[in-house]
Parts: sequence; structure tokens; C-alpha cells
Amino acid sequence: MGALDEGHFNAELENGVNLGGCVELGLEGGEPETPAIEDAVRVLLQGLGEDINREGIRKTPLRVAKALREGTRGYREKAKDVVHSALFPEVGLDNKIGHAGGAGGLVIVRDLDLFSYCESCLLPFHIKCHVGYVPSGQRVVGLSKFSRVADVFAKRLQDPQRLANEVCKALQHGIKPAGVAVVLQCSHIHFPKFESAFLDSNHEGWIKLLVSSGSGVFEDGKADVWADFLSLLRFRGINTANIHANGSDQCWCPSHSFTKIAPANSAMMSAVASILRSLGEDPSRKELIGTPARFVTWLMNFQNCNLEMKLNGLVRNQRDSMKPDGDISFGEEHLCSELNLPFWSQCEHHLLPFHGVVHIGYYCAAGGIPIGRSLLQSIVHFYGFKLQVQERLTRQIAETASSLLGEDVMVVVEANHTCMISRGIEKFGSNTATIAVLGQFSTDSTARAKFLHSIPNSCQSGL
Amino acid sequence: MGALDEGHFNAELENGVNLGGCVELGLEGGEPETPAIEDAVRVLLQGLGEDINREGIRKTPLRVAKALREGTRGYREKAKDVVHSALFPEVGLDNKIGHAGGAGGLVIVRDLDLFSYCESCLLPFHIKCHVGYVPSGQRVVGLSKFSRVADVFAKRLQDPQRLANEVCKALQHGIKPAGVAVVLQCSHIHFPKFESAFLDSNHEGWIKLLVSSGSGVFEDGKADVWADFLSLLRFRGINTANIHANGSDQCWCPSHSFTKIAPANSAMMSAVASILRSLGEDPSRKELIGTPARFVTWLMNFQNCNLEMKLNGLVRNQRDSMKPDGDISFGEEHLCSELNLPFWSQCEHHLLPFHGVVHIGYYCAAGGIPIGRSLLQSIVHFYGFKLQVQERLTRQIAETASSLLGEDVMVVVEANHTCMISRGIEKFGSNTATIAVLGQFSTDSTARAKFLHSIPNSCQSGL
Repeated sequence: MGALDEGHFNAELENGVNLGGCVELGLEGGEPETPAIEDAVRVLLQGLGEDINREGIRKTPLRVAKALREGTRGYREKAKDVVHSALFPEVGLDNKIGHAGGAGGLVIVRDLDLFSYCESCLLPFHIKCHVGYVPSGQRVVGLSKFSRVADVFAKRLQDPQRLANEVCKALQHGIKPAGVAVVLQCSHIHFPKFESAFLDSNHEGWIKLLVSSGSGVFEDGKADVWADFLSLLRFRGINTANIHANGSDQCWCPSHSFTKIAPANSAMMSAVASILRSLGEDPSRKELIGTPARFVTWLMNFQNCNLEMKLNGLVRNQRDSMKPDGDISFGEEHLCSELNLPFWSQCEHHLLPFHGVVHIGYYCAAGGIPIGRSLLQSIVHFYGFKLQVQERLTRQIAETASSLLGEDVMVVVEANHTCMISRGIEKFGSNTATIAVLGQFSTDSTARAKFLHSIPNSCQSGL
Repeated sequence: MGALDEGHFNAELENGVNLGGCVELGLEGGEPETPAIEDAVRVLLQGLGEDINREGIRKTPLRVAKALREGTRGYREKAKDVVHSALFPEVGLDNKIGHAGGAGGLVIVRDLDLFSYCESCLLPFHIKCHVGYVPSGQRVVGLSKFSRVADVFAKRLQDPQRLANEVCKALQHGIKPAGVAVVLQCSHIHFPKFESAFLDSNHEGWIKLLVSSGSGVFEDGKADVWADFLSLLRFRGINTANIHANGSDQCWCPSHSFTKIAPANSAMMSAVASILRSLGEDPSRKELIGTPARFVTWLMNFQNCNLEMKLNGLVRNQRDSMKPDGDISFGEEHLCSELNLPFWSQCEHHLLPFHGVVHIGYYCAAGGIPIGRSLLQSIVHFYGFKLQVQERLTRQIAETASSLLGEDVMVVVEANHTCMISRGIEKFGSNTATIAVLGQFSTDSTARAKFLHSIPNSCQSGL
């Protein structure tokens, strides 16, 4: 069971508060831990060079504190009670050989969307959770309880394999079935670093990891019952023993690949350690020792340096080089576009990532020199790597692109916001589009339609 | 704005309690309305011929009461406060012609999964909600607020068009933008009636309806800004005026097509009216007058009549006719299967629908007469149309099929449970698989694998 020893586990089961829906949520503002987190977030914002009294981020410390407390409420919940209240008698087979119902009939709950916080870097990660069990003792458990128990452990700082083990063990203890199987498909956002984002155009946005855990009849990863389970997860022909090397010490979190740790900002590091303590964690736990340094390193990607100044120089130079001799004959213009320029950014309301693609449409004179995709990508990265809101990002890209491309510019930004899934509303599939229209695009609906129709379905672009 | 007049709307905005996460959830057991709903549910269970002290349904009245109160918590919530706390200053364009940021840049939040209760039949329906607005006054609203406001109105007894109108109007009032657009894709489960389920093998399981509502610059359904909005919803070329005849009196709920209303059970009808009152509704409201009759008619599909008795006779006759003279030579057996037999059922823990498909595998002797799909479909319907749990349904189908098909039978049931989405956990994409294995299948993993691999990906079967 990996990092989890028996004593630690039982303490977790016993010490939590009762799990009754989302009772915690309404009370969090008044919890003693919340102001401590708020103070720490103020230190982080100041470390980023932000004015903490600026309107957009004035309440960010409170929002972050509430979101973090809510996102880690599993520390204050008890898996045992969840299960015990929902065991139902259910007979098995009557005078026949085989397994069914409350005596041996495999039950699988698939595709539970969860999220958790990565203990290595404090960013949320997404989990598609599949749970199965083989009933015994002529009793079954209410189906919704798998989701509730998994959530008790997901709502903590986690590592995928430990999460799978903890969910598996809690269900085994709570239901006492013939066996429990857990398979988690985890996705961790993978930001390029600010410096390399401009160079690496093929950066892969996600780290994916498939882990499993089994107890009882599922203890042996090669048992036949695993084949039944995996068949119904559509992972046909996959051997659980190969899913992930159980017990491997290699951490999946991309923050471990940071080669350059930012110059130590000891106030920011202490602030992150203080947040860990406020969430109920021990910052000296082995897996958490490097977390403050990794989180601060990542956060400093979004430092409020004066990017606009640099960018203005870049754009002016580029514009001059585009019109070398001023005698290009401007004939009929045609619609040009650059689609699916990836961006990564940080929501200033919640200090959580949002990311997606930018589409830029503009008119290019016949005979004009086409603008390079890489320059537009640079503009996108410049405005992405800071504390942002999507509406502002869209406007800033449009304004800057316009100074390069002429007055007729349209920008569409399509994004997934982590804050839409990792807080109370948990809208996993939702995404957001924003539009800025400049010049001709603001009055010409045909031009807008022509550009909008050229944008591919965002489902295909990985949103 | 259809059924919604100004006075009614304002009262709803003012009278609710503050919306803070899911504060209500933990308190519901103690609310005075809950015992009244429990009493009403007991009457309904008795009307179905159930023993209300039976272990599986003993706590069903409490579960139903909590789920209904939680699912209609919007009556006690106030949309206005949700929005007001999350307006952020955001400038528009600087010295350029056009629209962007907090002054005219269209913002769209797509694919918010919600559910609501149909006011005509009290069954939950699913909503894919898309909201857009055009900011004005140099301010934008936090993205998560669209989901929270939509949820305030979704968590009531609703009709799709009224829901769209209410969400649109609340956002217009709360944000005071240039305009708000709402598009809802609604899906309502469509049960076949018990009697006709056996005849109609092509019954369509869902009623779908697309509705829209617009205010401000979206008030005119033909306005250009609708084209931008719909393009980004991937509804390209659709005219909102055609989405749904706004103001049409025709109700989408399939319960309106019930030709035969069940013999009036006045105690059950009164119980449903009492539930409506306990949720904060007026049972004499025009749209609710027929609701108790429609709900009771639908519920009586799951009456606990002694189906097993009838079915045993059916199966015995069929079996006799299959072996007319007893001298069929049994050679080598081969694996047969009937896949994707649809079923509809009612979760006895929550009185909520679950539905999906059943796959049956068995061995057929070479030269044996193949069993008809329609007989297996009848068995599935027999066990579906009652208060059930999926584990029991799976076992019962396996046992009955076995008395017809021989001792080597495997049954897989794949289902969506409304109780997994319409209560606290709201796991929209999740689904459940259960297995029963009889005879040879319980020991022969190769046989199981062969059958499991023949089951098509359930995504394709509409689960």
C-alpha cells in the first residue's frame, strides 16, 4: 500500500468530521485557518510584484483561502461513516452455481470526475476514477458512496498512487467485500516555463498517469477478476501489473523537472509552508519538503514584470521591418488567420491556471508580407504569463496585434479554467470563450462570421 | 419572458436565503418540511404495494425528502447576491475602434452541466447550459457566477423556456451588461409505459429540446451578435428564432402524452400535492395542476405486482416449446449473446430512474434452437419495471434467463443512475456496470473475456 501505513490510515479515518454533503462550505470564512492562509497569499502576491490593494486581486487572498480549504476538506472528513450508512442486504444466487447480487456479482462505477491537489506543486489535477468491488456477505453498498469515499481522499494533497491505495483501503475496511479495485486516470497540467514557452511550440499540455490499486480478490494484479473489470472499463488487454510500476519512487509531477529553482524568496517559501500547515498538513512530511520551492518557482512564471514595455519595442521593430520601402501597392485585402495558438495563464481571482488557445483574424493587403505565426505566439505568451482574467487577455492580445496587423483585428480566446472545476461548482466540462473585435470586424458581421467559421471545433483542439 | 411576470420575479430574487456554496445540505434533515415529504413518500410506496418496513426502502422516504429539498434548494436562494459580490472593473479598448474587455467584448461560458426537476412530472432533466453576455460599464463578472446563477433557477421545478428566461433576466438585472444570451440543451428521460415497452422495441429514450432567451442586444433573436454567440457554441447557421417557438404552449414533457391516466388513487395524489407544498410550490399553479396525476401515473409503472409468477409461466411454456421432442443431438456448444437490450427501472433507494442496456451471454448447443431476442427483452422489462437496485436486477435476469437458456449464463447490466446526478454528488458522466456469472462462466475466465469483448463500447449505445 505504498506510503500508507496502517496506523496513519486509521488515524485519518477516526479524526475527521462527519461527511454530510458540503456542510463545511458555508462555515469556512469563519475558520481560524482561513486568515492565516489569506496572510500567506498576500505575501505571495507581493512577491509577484502585485499591488495587493488593486481592485481585481483585493479579495484574492480570501478567495484562495476558501478554495484551498474547500479543496482539501477531505482532511476533515471520515470515510467510514459514509459507507456504513449505506449498506443494503441483497441476496446472492438461489440454488445455482455462480456469482451474482450480494454474493460475488462484480459491481463497477465508472467515470467519476474528481480533482485533487498535487502534493508536489499544489496545482489541482483531474482524476477519472473507476471503482469496482465484489460483494460478499449478502450486502451491497449504495452506488453514490464510491464517489463520496473517493472524494474524501481526493480532497487532500495527493499523489495518484497513494490516492488509489487510500480509496481502495477505505472501501475494503468499510464494506468488507470479497475485494475492491480502483483505477485512476490522472491528468496534471504541464506548463512550459516562461522562458522556454517562446521556443517550444510543441509543448505537451498534460502529464497523464494511469494507476491502480486492489485488495482482496483484486490483490493479485494478475487475477482473472481484473480482466473482467478492465474489460468493462474498455481497457481491454491491459495488464494491471503494467499500468504503473506500483511503489515506484518517481514522481509524476512536472515540477520535478524544474532544473532551475528560482532565487530563494524566503518570505514566499515560508508563506507556502504556512498554507500547508493551515490545510492540516505537515510541511516536513517527506513528499512535501520541496513543495514550497516548487510552487514558488512555478508561481514566479507569472511575475508582474513590465512585459508591455519589452513587447512594444519588439512590435515596433517588427512593423518597421514589414514595410521596408513603403511602396507596396495595397490592392484588395483578404482575411488571414492564425488559429489555435496555445496559451497558459493564471487566474488573478483564484491563483489557479487557465489555459487554452487563441485565434487571431486580420485583413492582409494583397501583396502584403504575411505576419509570422511565431510573433503572434510570442504576443500570446507575453500576455498569458501573468496574473490575468480572460477578458483582459483577449483585449491585450487584440490591441497589441492591431499595432502590428492594422486596425481590423478579431481575437477569440477559448479556455479551460481550473477555478471552474476545483472549487465549489466543479463544472468539469465547461469552457469559456471571449471575443475582441477591432475596426471593420466590429461592424461587419459577415467578416466576423467568416472568421468564426474558420475556427475548428474546440473539442478537437484538446480543450 | 413567457410565464414570468416582473412582480413574481422580483419576489423570488428578494425572498431567498443567501447562496453560499451548499450550506443548506447539512441542515435539511432538521427542516420542518422534510418529515412532511417523508410521510408523503410513505403513502406513495404503500400505493405501489411495497412493504415500507422492508430493509432496502425503510430509509427511502428520508432519502427522497433530502434529495428533493436539495434538488429544489433554488427556492431558498437569491440570484442577486451571487452576482453582486463578483463584479470586477475591467477597461475596454484604448484609443481604438471596436469592442473588447469590459466594454463590449462578448464573453461566453459553455457546457455547464445542470439538472432540474420537470414541473410536469417531477422527474429530473439534464441541461447543457451556455451563457453569454456583452459587458458594459467597464466591468466584468466572475466566470463561475454564471453557473451559480443558473443553478439557483435550475434547482426548482422548471420548464426549459422559463428556466432560460429566468437565468437571462437575473443576469441582466445583476450585471446590467449590454445584453445576456442563454441557450439550454435539455434532455428529458422518456420511459415507455409498462404495457407498451414489450411491443415497442425502437422506443426513443430521450426527449430533447433546445431553447434560448436573450435580453439587451440579444433581445432580437435575429441580431448579429446571436450569430457570433451561436458560432462559438458550434451551432453554426442556426437561427435562434427557430430554436424553439418562444411562448409556445406545448409542453415538452412526455407525460403529457399519457393517454390513460391511472385510476385515481386519491391518497397518492394528495401525497404528491403535499410534496409540492413542502418544496415551496403552489400545487394550484397552472402548470402544476396536472402534476400529481402525471407523477402517480408514471410511478404506477413500477407497481409491485407479482411479475415473477407470470414470468415463470411464460418461461416454462417457452422452454417446453424449445424442446419439442427431446431428441436434439447436443454436439459442441458455442457462445451466443444478445447485446444492448434496453431497460428502464426505478431506484428503490431514491425513487429516481435508472436505465441502460443489458447484455446476455450463454452457450447454445450446436443444432439447438436459438432463443428469441424478444423473449429476453421481455424478461429484462419484467424485472426493470419495479422498484429495483441494479445488483438485484442483474441477478434476477440471470436466474430467469438461466431457467430458459441453461446453467451457463452471464449477464452484464450497464446503467445511468439519475440519483448519481440529481443529488449532492452530481456526477454527470458516471455510469455503472454489474455482472452476474452462472455455471461455466463463474470459473472460465476465457469464456467471460470472450463475452465481455463482444460488448460494444457503451459510449456508442447512448449511455
